[in-house]
Amino acid sequence: MKIALCQMTVTENKEMNLNNASKMVVEAKTKGADMIVLPEMFNCPYSSAYFRAYAEVRGTGTYNKLSEWAAREKVVLVGGSIPELEDGKIYNTSYIFGPDGACLGAHRKAHLFDIDIPGEIRFVESETLTPGDTHTMIDSHLGRFGVAICYDMRFPEFFRKMTLEGAGFVVVPAAFNMTTGPVHWELTARARALDNQMFMVLCSPARDTSGVYVAYGHSMVTNPWGEVIGEMDEQEGILIVDVELKECSEVRSGLPLLKHRRPELY
Amino acid sequence: MKIALCQMTVTENKEMNLNNASKMVVEAKTKGADMIVLPEMFNCPYSSAYFRAYAEVRGTGTYNKLSEWAAREKVVLVGGSIPELEDGKIYNTSYIFGPDGACLGAHRKAHLFDIDIPGEIRFVESETLTPGDTHTMIDSHLGRFGVAICYDMRFPEFFRKMTLEGAGFVVVPAAFNMTTGPVHWELTARARALDNQMFMVLCSPARDTSGVYVAYGHSMVTNPWGEVIGEMDEQEGILIVDVELKECSEVRSGLPLLKHRRPELY
Repeated sequence: MKIALCQMTVTENKEMNLNNASKMVVEAKTKGADMIVLPEMFNCPYSSAYFRAYAEVRGTGTYNKLSEWAAREKVVLVGGSIPELEDGKIYNTSYIFGPDGACLGAHRKAHLFDIDIPGEIRFVESETLTPGDTHTMIDSHLGRFGVAICYDMRFPEFFRKMTLEGAGFVVVPAAFNMTTGPVHWELTARARALDNQMFMVLCSPARDTSGVYVAYGHSMVTNPWGEVIGEMDEQEGILIVDVELKECSEVRSGLPLLKHRRPELY
Repeated sequence: MKIALCQMTVTENKEMNLNNASKMVVEAKTKGADMIVLPEMFNCPYSSAYFRAYAEVRGTGTYNKLSEWAAREKVVLVGGSIPELEDGKIYNTSYIFGPDGACLGAHRKAHLFDIDIPGEIRFVESETLTPGDTHTMIDSHLGRFGVAICYDMRFPEFFRKMTLEGAGFVVVPAAFNMTTGPVHWELTARARALDNQMFMVLCSPARDTSGVYVAYGHSMVTNPWGEVIGEMDEQEGILIVDVELKECSEVRSGLPLLKHRRPELY
């Protein structure tokens, strides 16, 4: 399976973002992608000041475009995330579509990113967003996988749950920053992959140092042995990574971590 | 607090191992250690063929020597681990002593190391050992900490439990090998520390390429931000690392991962 990470630059112009995403989806398909992943908040600047203005009701606007793109290119499309409006509340939501354009599921970010490191970074998603209330499993012709968003990645329990429910990989649209990215991005991706002996697929926006939020970039895929098998730098672009799901069972056979769990002790 | 890691060479001669450990404990104290840590199976070669012959009943032999050393040097001593015999069963057990020589607790390795990677390594602890049935928390004048042994480190749930019960650090006598060590040792130590925002203290035997089991070495300490703050190479020696437990609360204040957990979702 070839997975394409579209590390796109996100601007304040929603139309431009959508056009850019559409072009990258075409290009990814041309490069042979079976699955295409967009980054977190790919149609909206990652800033609390923008979420409400850019929010859309499910089944409208960006949602429909994602469905069209998936059907047009006949791929599984993990549509990064966008601000979703429902009953006056805003969620950070990822929609996932199959090659016939049908929606395979949606994940609402379940752990909101509230950080306050003096002199470094302050960001309080919970001021504007409402968290989702479940993990998300997707069944597709490419296999069963989980979807999580950015800060969800910080919680090992969340990924263990998806693994125990049969995820061979978890796709994570995400936007780490320049404080946490250099130290925690690769570390967390590798650790979740190793502990659960599955693949982690991370897609970030490109780094825009003039933007309202400077993303770390470095979209990457890690394998069930905990190694990075594909990584971008901070610039806009597309990375295609070959993912062989049978590696999960090979690694689990030699070092049976999941079998050796002792849930009665935890 | 100064923690000393005694990365000692383990031989087939138990008496020599005990003499070596005793000398390293003296040297560590001379270097200012408040806590001294020995490696996994420090008095016995790490091989199923040796465990029963070297096993000792709790309260005898090596146990008493550890108590004497702790009292003599007035330190907290995490006595690596040794094979423990009880009712015909053998455990991989770590004894922990306080500066008055009193036993503060004992941890029996709860996850046995059964690995079989063709052409690389085969080791089946469960052929000879019995697992412990709990995590282990120690209260000392240096703070509350957890103790785990080697393969226990593979299970994030185990470390989360110790963290939620107030561990500011977890001490892990361990002996990774040349297959898993280079890829997984630092990764796992950093990830447990970062996810739980506490310190990890790992102590390995020195690498002896002529021994029955070739340990990776690289005893290390990682901090609550997920960084390595002290690391040895593969050779015998002592490393003293300054550990400031207040860093746990500082990191947890800026990035409140533990507060942001959503146990109802897992």
